[in-house]
Amino acid sequence: MTTPEAREQLVLEAVKQRREQVNEAIPEGLPIKPPERLYEASRYLLDAGGKRLRPTVLLTTAEALADVDPLSQEYRSFPTLEGTGPDQIDIMDAAVSVEVIQSFTLIHDDIMDDDDLRRGVPAVHKAYDLETAILAGDTLYSKAFEIMLETGAPAERTVAALDVLATTCTKICEGQSLDVAFESRNEVTPEEYLEMVEQKTAVLYAASACLPAVLLGADEETVDALYGYGLDIGRAFQIHDDVLDLTVPSEKLGKQRGSDLVENKQTLITVHAREQGVDIERLVDTTDVDAVTEAEIDAAVSELEDVGSIRYANETARELVDRGKDRLEVLPDNEARDLLCSLADYLIERGY
Amino acid sequence: MTTPEAREQLVLEAVKQRREQVNEAIPEGLPIKPPERLYEASRYLLDAGGKRLRPTVLLTTAEALADVDPLSQEYRSFPTLEGTGPDQIDIMDAAVSVEVIQSFTLIHDDIMDDDDLRRGVPAVHKAYDLETAILAGDTLYSKAFEIMLETGAPAERTVAALDVLATTCTKICEGQSLDVAFESRNEVTPEEYLEMVEQKTAVLYAASACLPAVLLGADEETVDALYGYGLDIGRAFQIHDDVLDLTVPSEKLGKQRGSDLVENKQTLITVHAREQGVDIERLVDTTDVDAVTEAEIDAAVSELEDVGSIRYANETARELVDRGKDRLEVLPDNEARDLLCSLADYLIERGY
Repeated sequence: MTTPEAREQLVLEAVKQRREQVNEAIPEGLPIKPPERLYEASRYLLDAGGKRLRPTVLLTTAEALADVDPLSQEYRSFPTLEGTGPDQIDIMDAAVSVEVIQSFTLIHDDIMDDDDLRRGVPAVHKAYDLETAILAGDTLYSKAFEIMLETGAPAERTVAALDVLATTCTKICEGQSLDVAFESRNEVTPEEYLEMVEQKTAVLYAASACLPAVLLGADEETVDALYGYGLDIGRAFQIHDDVLDLTVPSEKLGKQRGSDLVENKQTLITVHAREQGVDIERLVDTTDVDAVTEAEIDAAVSELEDVGSIRYANETARELVDRGKDRLEVLPDNEARDLLCSLADYLIERGY
Repeated sequence: MTTPEAREQLVLEAVKQRREQVNEAIPEGLPIKPPERLYEASRYLLDAGGKRLRPTVLLTTAEALADVDPLSQEYRSFPTLEGTGPDQIDIMDAAVSVEVIQSFTLIHDDIMDDDDLRRGVPAVHKAYDLETAILAGDTLYSKAFEIMLETGAPAERTVAALDVLATTCTKICEGQSLDVAFESRNEVTPEEYLEMVEQKTAVLYAASACLPAVLLGADEETVDALYGYGLDIGRAFQIHDDVLDLTVPSEKLGKQRGSDLVENKQTLITVHAREQGVDIERLVDTTDVDAVTEAEIDAAVSELEDVGSIRYANETARELVDRGKDRLEVLPDNEARDLLCSLADYLIERGY
C-alpha cells in the first residue's frame, strides 16, 4: 500500500509536469496586448503561481479516458475516442480555460472579501485598483469562453463544453453569494454549508473532470460519473482548505492563518462546532486580520479540536474522496486512473 | 420624405412593440430563484427600464433577413433561411442574451465610475452593495451565454453565435479599460476616441445586428455587412449620447447633466474642443457631480458650441449613420429594412 508521503511525491511530480505545460499555454491563450495594463492585470494572478490542480485533473482525466500512458500524448493534439470526430483535439485549451475561470473568480472574490494577499502577492485590486481588478476578471471571463471555442472539437461537443462552462460559472456565482450571505447568519447547517461549497468550489473540479469526456466524445454515463468525481473531490478540497486555514503557518499559507475565523466565515468546522455549543463569535475577538495574534488563533484551534470539529471535517473530506474514487470505475483501468485516485487522496492529505 | 418627428413616432412604436415582448422574455430567461438576493440584484436594472434598443435591432434584423413583415412572426419560433437547419429557432433568446450582457456591463461600469444613478434609480452597488453588484454582473455574464445556448440553432451556428458573444464581451472590456485610461490622459485623438467607443459600445450593436444572420444561416457577406451596420450606428449612438449628456436636463437624463465633463471623461466633443485650444479641465471647476451648478454646465456648453465641437460630433454621428444605412443594401428590400434605416436615424435624432 502506498504511503501518503509516497503518494504526495507521485502527485506533486505529476502536477509539476503538467503545470509546466499549462504555464507555457497560458500566455498563448492570453497574450499581453493592448490595452496592456488590462491584460497585465488579467495575467497577474495566473503568473503569480498556483498549483494548476484543476488543469491537472482535466489533463489526467483525458489520459485515463483515451487509455494512454500519462504524458505520452501532446495535449495540443490529443487523440479523441473511437474516431467519431476529428482525430485529435486541443485538450490543453480546455485546461487553460478552466484555470482562467478559476483566476477570474479569485480576483473578484478578493475584492468582495477585501483580502490583501493571494498566492503570497497583493490581490489584484491592491496591486492595481478596484476598476482594473473588476475589468481584469471580466476579461478573463470572456477569454475563457474564447479559449474553449478553440479546441477543434466537433460543434456539438463544443456546444456541450460551453454549456458546462456557462452553467459552472453561474453556480460559482450562486455559491459565492451564499458564502457572503452566510457571513451574516449564525445558523447554517452542515448540509447548507456543503451545498454552498459544492456551488462555489466543487463545480469547477466537476467541470474539469467531465470536460475531457464531453470533448473527446465519451458517453453520458461517463460524463456524469466524472462530474460526480469532481464534485466529491472538490468539496473535500474545500473542506481540507478550511482545515489548513487554521493549522498551517501564515508564511506557508501566503495569508494570515485563521483569517476565516477572524472574518466570521462559515466553514464545516465552525458549523459543526456551533452545533456542539461553541460560541464561534467569541473564539476570536477581533474582526481585523491584521490585529489578530497567533496566541488567539492557537486557543481557538484548541477549542475546535476539543469538540471534535476538526476531526469531523477531516472525516467528511475522507468520505467524499472515497466516494469520488469509486466513481472512477467507469474509466479503463490504467495508470492515469490510478493517478486520479492518488490526486483525490492528495487533495485532503496535502500540507498546504 | 419622412420628417424626423414622423420617424421618431414610427421607431418609438416599433421599439415599444418589441420591448413589450422582450420584457416578457427577460424573466423567463432569468427567473428569480435561490439565492433570491443575487437574482433580484441581477434583475434590478433590467426591471428598472431601458428602451431595449439592441434587442430591437436584433429582432428587426431577423425580420429583414427572413423577408417577413415586422411583427408577423413569433420570435420564439422564428423561420430560418432556406431550410438548411431546423425550420425555426428562438431568436428572442438571442435578443435577451444581448440585453443581459448590456445590463452586466452597466452594473460593473457604474461601480468603476462610482455613478449613483442609472435609469433614474440607484445603481446596483448603491441599491445593494459592492459585493452583490459585482456578483450580479458576473451572474448575468454567464446567464447570457446560457440563454444564447437555448435558441435551438444547429450546433455550428450556435458555436458561431457564442464566438460573437465572447469576443464582443472581450472587446467591451478592452474599450472600458481604454475609457478609464483616457480619464487620466490629456492627449486623446478623435481616432483613439472612436476606437474606444467602437470597443466599448458599438460592438454590442454590431453583435445585435449580425447575430440573427449567424443564427438564421445567412452567408458571410451578409454577416459582415450587418456587423458593420451595427458598428457604425453604435458609434453614432455613443457620440449622440455624449451630446445628450451636455444638452438634456438632468431630470430627463436620469442623472446629472454634464457629468461626463465633471468626471473628466473624454468624449468626441472634448477631444475636438481640446484640438481647438479649449482648456477642458478649466471648463468645470469641480470634479464632484453633486457640487456642480447648472450655470457652470451652461457656460461650458456655450464654449463648446462656440468652437464648433458639438456640431463636429453631430456631423460625425450623421456620417456614421449614413454609412451604416448603406450597408443594409445587402438585405432584401422590405419594411423591416426600412425600419432598420429609420432606427439608425433615430439613434442620432432622439432627444434622450
